[in-house]
Amino acid sequence: MLYRDAGVDITAMDAVKRRIAGIARSTFSPGVISEVGLFGSLCRVPKLRDPVLVASCDGVGTKLVIARLCGRYDTVGIDIVNHSVNDILTLGARPLFFLDYIAHSKLKPESLLAIVQGLGKACRDNGCSLVGGETAMMPDIYRPHDFDLAGFIVGTVERNKVIDATRISPGDAVIGIPSSGLHTNGYSLARRVLFDKAGLKVSSRIKGLTRSLGEELLRPHRSYLKPVYSLLSRIHALAHITGGGFYGNIARLLPHEVSVIVKKSGWRPSPIFGVIQRLGNVPDEEMYRTFNMGMGMVLFVAPKQTDRILGSIPGSRVIGKVVRGTFGVSVV
Amino acid sequence: MLYRDAGVDITAMDAVKRRIAGIARSTFSPGVISEVGLFGSLCRVPKLRDPVLVASCDGVGTKLVIARLCGRYDTVGIDIVNHSVNDILTLGARPLFFLDYIAHSKLKPESLLAIVQGLGKACRDNGCSLVGGETAMMPDIYRPHDFDLAGFIVGTVERNKVIDATRISPGDAVIGIPSSGLHTNGYSLARRVLFDKAGLKVSSRIKGLTRSLGEELLRPHRSYLKPVYSLLSRIHALAHITGGGFYGNIARLLPHEVSVIVKKSGWRPSPIFGVIQRLGNVPDEEMYRTFNMGMGMVLFVAPKQTDRILGSIPGSRVIGKVVRGTFGVSVV
Repeated sequence: MLYRDAGVDITAMDAVKRRIAGIARSTFSPGVISEVGLFGSLCRVPKLRDPVLVASCDGVGTKLVIARLCGRYDTVGIDIVNHSVNDILTLGARPLFFLDYIAHSKLKPESLLAIVQGLGKACRDNGCSLVGGETAMMPDIYRPHDFDLAGFIVGTVERNKVIDATRISPGDAVIGIPSSGLHTNGYSLARRVLFDKAGLKVSSRIKGLTRSLGEELLRPHRSYLKPVYSLLSRIHALAHITGGGFYGNIARLLPHEVSVIVKKSGWRPSPIFGVIQRLGNVPDEEMYRTFNMGMGMVLFVAPKQTDRILGSIPGSRVIGKVVRGTFGVSVV
Repeated sequence: MLYRDAGVDITAMDAVKRRIAGIARSTFSPGVISEVGLFGSLCRVPKLRDPVLVASCDGVGTKLVIARLCGRYDTVGIDIVNHSVNDILTLGARPLFFLDYIAHSKLKPESLLAIVQGLGKACRDNGCSLVGGETAMMPDIYRPHDFDLAGFIVGTVERNKVIDATRISPGDAVIGIPSSGLHTNGYSLARRVLFDKAGLKVSSRIKGLTRSLGEELLRPHRSYLKPVYSLLSRIHALAHITGGGFYGNIARLLPHEVSVIVKKSGWRPSPIFGVIQRLGNVPDEEMYRTFNMGMGMVLFVAPKQTDRILGSIPGSRVIGKVVRGTFGVSVV
């Protein structure tokens, strides 16, 4: 009996891994001093007076099911990189490097490559080096059509520039920056409503959406690094609106006796959210607790900086305010 | 319709996450300057003249199936941490922090906690801070009994102390350090042979094994950090014997025109490997290409350092030599 007979063909995977290595190299910054293929990846620490590393780990979640239904694998790589970049951006960090974990059973080599091409593209766009990763073929855990994709990012920030959310103060404006659809959260609910309950397909065309349902749901998570990074010194704090929506992601930042009122009238959620809410008869509060509702990043900004921020970030607008109080987050 | 109806109960998971946060905090070094629950984890860079970060990502693989069959979840957390610690040790790094990714469908809260308790124990043992992670509940991707566990590690090393395998030279001794069983590789083959072909169960008792088959297969991957770290300056290079066995893990280190002869007669593989080989009728070469055969870490050492290394590391022994040649790795 050979290892190959157990469903794992190391030689076939090696060919794919060589092409993946080429994509990874195309993302390397000068700080990456290792070759691909060692037991670990080497990266110098950027010159800072007191460098702080900011690390985060996340998965794409069941948006992967949409990718499989559409037979399109390049966007989920972009999703996980941009999601991760946004997470560490909320602490003031710029990305340094990224590693991916792909687990699957029988993904075609071209699908695997497409995933990594998406990772590579997003890493280059964010100035982040794709220094490593793991591709695990596990036919006994994943069904033939299933796979999982997770990512791990490390960024850096000067210690005295770490974003400290205790600076959020009553009177601050709450500014939203538009999302590009659902981003990477709420897909379990969205799929139940759209596919199981309403009987739609990824190819369905729905009034009010400019794309097919599958294309709309696969729109890549956008990165907020470029519009926001140069403005960080003018921002008290940032909330990345991911799983948990407005409630979960804003509440965890708030200092003692400081609360936030988000005004739904402050913006018009993108049409896909209206489609999900209508077809699923989802209560308003549940929508704002699950989805980004069209605003993927929320900034907390002192009144005197508000105009500057609004003028610098396309599409940004005031969606609420910070007040005294202990109620946490209220969406009205 | 609520998010909970879609199979994801955020509130129930929050309770588990609070206990996980407590375990994580118990591993924090003074360099960790963030609280649990932000969008990213903050860790200062240890004071080094020219710090290099060493990063690695890996999964536990189908050893997870054994954990499920045994209903025992604490050891796989130890596996992934120690596996990762060993990987970056081969480049001279000591661990700084670790993040985990757990994906599942219906793991019981106590099973999730057991996994994290294993992660926490191994992190404390290795002086590594468990600074974050992601627990994703995805009933549409994972079957009720399945789960996946991956890990990401970052360590640091002074730039001029990065282990550079080009120092491997003809005449060097090849020294093996004992493993604690299969570690984290070769489980697809082992399970096919032991369970599917030979019809054994995890509760089976086999002549020559001191534990039940399940206990033997679940033995945690050992960490080589403590026995090896203080000796790194005396070692030319290290190969962590993981997937790919002796061939894959040694060959990738070898400089041009340098080859390695591993002598099987140099040690006696632990009994579990004999059981797998016999029951599966697995060719010798395939065994050494898939398993660690009882030697989980291999060191390349100049002749004059050999006695010092052998005297300092319990159980270590010479298992081969470095020679001129282009054949790569030969196991004879």
